Amino acid sequence: MVEAAAHNAQIVLSERPEGKLEEGNFTRVVGAIPEVAEGEVLARTILLSLDPANRAWMNGRTYRDQVAAGQVMSGFTLSEVVDANGTSLAAGTVIAGEAGWQQYAALPVSAVEPVTLHGPLTHHMSVLGITGLTAYFGLQEIGRPQPGETVVVSAAGGATGNVVGQLARIQGARVVGISGSDEKNRLLEEELGFDATVNHRDADLRGALKSACPNGIDVYFDNVAGPVLNAVLPRMNEFGRIVCCGSVSDYDSGRAPAGPPAVPGVLIARRLRMQGFIVLDYAERFAEATARLAELVREGKLLVLEEVLDGLESAPEGLIGLLAGDNIGKRLVRVGPDPAPDRPR
Amino acid sequence: MVEAAAHNAQIVLSERPEGKLEEGNFTRVVGAIPEVAEGEVLARTILLSLDPANRAWMNGRTYRDQVAAGQVMSGFTLSEVVDANGTSLAAGTVIAGEAGWQQYAALPVSAVEPVTLHGPLTHHMSVLGITGLTAYFGLQEIGRPQPGETVVVSAAGGATGNVVGQLARIQGARVVGISGSDEKNRLLEEELGFDATVNHRDADLRGALKSACPNGIDVYFDNVAGPVLNAVLPRMNEFGRIVCCGSVSDYDSGRAPAGPPAVPGVLIARRLRMQGFIVLDYAERFAEATARLAELVREGKLLVLEEVLDGLESAPEGLIGLLAGDNIGKRLVRVGPDPAPDRPR
Repeated sequence: MVEAAAHNAQIVLSERPEGKLEEGNFTRVVGAIPEVAEGEVLARTILLSLDPANRAWMNGRTYRDQVAAGQVMSGFTLSEVVDANGTSLAAGTVIAGEAGWQQYAALPVSAVEPVTLHGPLTHHMSVLGITGLTAYFGLQEIGRPQPGETVVVSAAGGATGNVVGQLARIQGARVVGISGSDEKNRLLEEELGFDATVNHRDADLRGALKSACPNGIDVYFDNVAGPVLNAVLPRMNEFGRIVCCGSVSDYDSGRAPAGPPAVPGVLIARRLRMQGFIVLDYAERFAEATARLAELVREGKLLVLEEVLDGLESAPEGLIGLLAGDNIGKRLVRVGPDPAPDRPR
Repeated sequence: MVEAAAHNAQIVLSERPEGKLEEGNFTRVVGAIPEVAEGEVLARTILLSLDPANRAWMNGRTYRDQVAAGQVMSGFTLSEVVDANGTSLAAGTVIAGEAGWQQYAALPVSAVEPVTLHGPLTHHMSVLGITGLTAYFGLQEIGRPQPGETVVVSAAGGATGNVVGQLARIQGARVVGISGSDEKNRLLEEELGFDATVNHRDADLRGALKSACPNGIDVYFDNVAGPVLNAVLPRMNEFGRIVCCGSVSDYDSGRAPAGPPAVPGVLIARRLRMQGFIVLDYAERFAEATARLAELVREGKLLVLEEVLDGLESAPEGLIGLLAGDNIGKRLVRVGPDPAPDRPR
């Protein structure tokens, strides 16, 4: 199989974006299939995850190194081991890792996880993947909604947000979604069981939030920061929790973000907890969480929203559209076919 | 005794301050000794607490109602019951409550606490009073410093800050104080055992913080918000805690505060928890905490920093100076004498 594809299509971040990300910031190149060193496997990319965080990685060091200009663009992937190279991983095994925007990568065994399949591979990039796990751990560990409480989630039509809302509803909370599109909001209410929705482009966002949350807000799962966070803070109830998951509103701009003026005043007056997290900190519990999420999917309680773009070359435009909020649910890219069903696992 | 002082000196907030608080915002008046209704006692004010929060109360609703123009200024007090009015409180009992800036007040029994004396009455307004309890609960419940961690506290020479630093040191943390005066900082290092100090007026505040905290910051006890908070946030270690106790830098200005630009970005990247609290939420545990603090004072491990101003008429200037950072330790006002030692308790 390696022989049949002796070239390696790659997409490089050729220049760091100034302001909004553009297709011109990327360059397609064809590299060689990489040599594998000891402790590494050769992996063929099957699915590539597109995440708002990809854009934040270009701006500087976050919880990981910056993606620098001239590098193959980074990204979470599902891959098939095509050369086990004497490691403990068998050829044909599907592994989760960070192969980036390319067809083949040499990955250290210590930096990948074999995937125990609970459903279609795409689910392992959406509800059973990083974004679903982000929703799960952010909600369980930081938001901790109680039945009857009001949970608000921003970017509610996104990969993480839609799962946050569905999980909170399953736990008995009243769920209010914020997105930038009436079409997404209709879907959230009609298909996913959200109790109410707000369009963040509403000229009277604060008024819309007040109407949608007559009993205030107990948990705010924040994927966007910026003006939406500013509008939510004054509606928080005493002892409320703000799950700081992302700040998409800042990622794709050339400016430094302005801080929320209500911080720390409203945190004190209302005794709020505002807490950031990175899902990778919970890696030891991923198997438990994935099994639970898969059970909810099988039972029909958790619907899966996915958009699968075709081919590595669709990644730049796909990411740019994601940052503009064009996606409904998880957006991913099919880079190559699933492993042949008769391959040894 | 009531007969001997048939008038009631009071200080009224005659107008809401625009910008910085001034003596002209207050008016001294002489009112009548109030009538007591059922369930109330007549209380003679002994000591009046001056707190930065007094200024915040003038700006709007916080965790309590706004102090409106035309009202007797609000404030925490220690008082003596002079007319028990058939309630469960004996005459002569010392009670903690909120009599405000006046010599006599009718207080509902349900809104006062009899004080179990552990030392001089003044200690019950400082280290054993609200500010000491604020330090205790904010540190224990929210900051939770571990031995060897670095704890930074702002307004470190203030009533709460100095106790925070001393308690953190007793728990084995490395303690760094921030104040606006080299004189205070010397006292903190030489008398109170702070490991290092920073003057927030330093032209290179970020550099000074970096030098004082070579291993980063694990707990930041924030009394001031504003530029000091902005300088601290980038120095926080992963999984650090920010105790939001006050935002003194905002209280005494006419402007709306600017938010910290690093929020929520750095909260996510470093997995920080930022949490506000109000000490009154821990009222059920005040007795336990007071006993523990009194023990530390008796053992000489916790030094008491107090400034006692003389006479109710000194309260306005005393509060204005407090907001400018003139105080070292707890600033309070003696409004009347301690109860006679031979009074029944």
